[in-house]
Amino acid sequence: MSAPVTSPSTSAHPFEGDPVFDLHVGGKMAVAATVGVGTREDLSLAYTPGVARVCEAIAADPGMTHHYTWVPNTVAVVTDGTAVLGLGDIGPAAAMPVMEGKAVLFKQFGGVDGVPICLDTTDVDELVETVVRLAPSFGGINLEDISAPRCFEVEDRLKERLDIPVFHDDQHGTAVVVLAALENALRLTGRAHAGTRVVVSGAGAAGVAVTKILLEAGIEDLVVTDRSGIVSEDRDDLTDVKRALAGLTAGRSVRNGSLADAMAGADVYIGVSGGTVDEAVVATMAADAIIFGLANPTPEVLPEVAHRHARVVATGRSDFPNQINNVLAFPGIFRGAFDAHATAITENMKLAAAGALADLVGDELREDFIIPSPFDPRVAPAVASAVAEAARRDGVARR
Amino acid sequence: MSAPVTSPSTSAHPFEGDPVFDLHVGGKMAVAATVGVGTREDLSLAYTPGVARVCEAIAADPGMTHHYTWVPNTVAVVTDGTAVLGLGDIGPAAAMPVMEGKAVLFKQFGGVDGVPICLDTTDVDELVETVVRLAPSFGGINLEDISAPRCFEVEDRLKERLDIPVFHDDQHGTAVVVLAALENALRLTGRAHAGTRVVVSGAGAAGVAVTKILLEAGIEDLVVTDRSGIVSEDRDDLTDVKRALAGLTAGRSVRNGSLADAMAGADVYIGVSGGTVDEAVVATMAADAIIFGLANPTPEVLPEVAHRHARVVATGRSDFPNQINNVLAFPGIFRGAFDAHATAITENMKLAAAGALADLVGDELREDFIIPSPFDPRVAPAVASAVAEAARRDGVARR
Repeated sequence: MSAPVTSPSTSAHPFEGDPVFDLHVGGKMAVAATVGVGTREDLSLAYTPGVARVCEAIAADPGMTHHYTWVPNTVAVVTDGTAVLGLGDIGPAAAMPVMEGKAVLFKQFGGVDGVPICLDTTDVDELVETVVRLAPSFGGINLEDISAPRCFEVEDRLKERLDIPVFHDDQHGTAVVVLAALENALRLTGRAHAGTRVVVSGAGAAGVAVTKILLEAGIEDLVVTDRSGIVSEDRDDLTDVKRALAGLTAGRSVRNGSLADAMAGADVYIGVSGGTVDEAVVATMAADAIIFGLANPTPEVLPEVAHRHARVVATGRSDFPNQINNVLAFPGIFRGAFDAHATAITENMKLAAAGALADLVGDELREDFIIPSPFDPRVAPAVASAVAEAARRDGVARR
Repeated sequence: MSAPVTSPSTSAHPFEGDPVFDLHVGGKMAVAATVGVGTREDLSLAYTPGVARVCEAIAADPGMTHHYTWVPNTVAVVTDGTAVLGLGDIGPAAAMPVMEGKAVLFKQFGGVDGVPICLDTTDVDELVETVVRLAPSFGGINLEDISAPRCFEVEDRLKERLDIPVFHDDQHGTAVVVLAALENALRLTGRAHAGTRVVVSGAGAAGVAVTKILLEAGIEDLVVTDRSGIVSEDRDDLTDVKRALAGLTAGRSVRNGSLADAMAGADVYIGVSGGTVDEAVVATMAADAIIFGLANPTPEVLPEVAHRHARVVATGRSDFPNQINNVLAFPGIFRGAFDAHATAITENMKLAAAGALADLVGDELREDFIIPSPFDPRVAPAVASAVAEAARRDGVARR
């Protein structure tokens, strides 16, 4: 039996000596065979002629795919490279290191086999058609770093066309972790959902999904703002997506105006916009305020500013307490969906994931601990179990 | 750091106790992380914020992809499920076990990371467009089990559109191994290329590629036959591909007629058709005949029949000597192409692969040993080295 002949060079490379680049030499992932083919007998089982019988079994009953292929444990990590981290539209090739990173996290935290798929098109129809054609190869689709508003249409159409989980992590991963953190922050500050005034700053992928999940969770008084101020039916510059947001947030007490108007007296600020908020504006929030500044690397409200005016502060950064990190959600969500052979990821599955995350904090809840650490080994199993259970309750589980 | 939560069930399954199905439970492959993300520091290098610098470096210089991603070592194993083994058009889902098997062989024999891509379309335009859009994710494209004549157009158009290796294994893998075996059989029986009369039975993917490579290697008197007999310009039922074959084989001495007409006095029979040849017809071949019956599981000429009339006999089966097995070619060919960062797989690279394979037999050459064993550890390195060298000679190597 022959060993691999060579592997990608790990010697000299352009940025040698830089720890980030040194770690990236040859990429961050590989394919592994889980069966050996060291003898003719092995070959005849794993490949021809034996494999033909497995193919015939699947052709006769497509459900056999779940038993005899790697498909039910795989997720395509799909991007078009248009909204990569804070870098924007850098194209599919340059997006690959992020997609590989995501695949590594899927594996390490969820035992899910992620395959990076960086697509050389930004056309919505082409993105949808391409993923539909790829679908027989994968057990689920994780959309990643696709710019708004295209990401909404791509996701909606794929959910309609496919009977496997489709999940846009920039939307729903963020939303699940924000909801979990917010539930604990509300509990800590003695607030009920009703009557709590929330400002979501940013109406992109994350802002839309955060808004929707908070409304589903029972928040009623929620204002979304974009660069022009409050997203309101009275404006005539709204996209379809923002017009829908204005309708969804009809229960808000502040109808129109600027971010400052929205912030005056607000209980919660959730920044998913990348702007910055003046301290004078932050100072107008209610007592015991809650501030999540999630832009990376610079939060919309810097922690030192936030702490002067708020009781609970969270960011997207790992060097501050209360990190809102999607890795808390997506590995466990797909693990749970796959364990249940779910045909979709429903709203209840996301709410269940958020609930499981929030519950893990339990009695340790305090101002600087509203969300578990990504390295808490209980996280993915707890999320997976809650998600699988919700899938069964919603009737989308096949086992 | 959390371990994978669960893995696909390896307990009860529908065909439990059948060794082939037992081996296939959960599939035959997985994704492996080659970097750990067990600490916040790890995460900040392999994922955000560190990864952003790697993305920026690639955005500034796409050549950085070769250093800092897994792309240059990956091959998409692409099928539409229309010509899977001898099973025919069983669809993309049922083709997956073969594609996984191929990925396992790529890894084990060539150190290449193969990703199975089973596409839910059989339309040539859609296949081409889909693979073009996928291309930024992969270092090469291995087409597999796509039915003729669509496979020719898909391959040709992809080669035109992409600057990475594109290789249809059913054509070229078979052709390379057949040529290697034939070179040794000719040497053993004291034949020169000129004057040797060859019959290729079958004008599908393998037949076309075998014909082309034998002509390139110097065979001049070559007849192709299909179900209607010799592929000749005088017929009015030829597809474009077969008409081209008739032109390519203009140097043949038998112009028209049946398979029997072609076989009378022929030196070499290469069956890639799946039919059977009557023993009476086999008996009309020249002395010291060479018979390759490559259909699986039933060779066109059964070995016991062939041995009564031929000096050298090869099949596609592992339970007879002289197995013509593509695994001798594709792992080393892609290894060599990747080692050279080749932008294509040229005719010379295929010829070099065949030469390297034939040479490995060396002085051990005898009637029942004209081609190395797939388990000879020298095979992939020898093929890879010859292929990389040919890529450099042909000016398609980037290093």
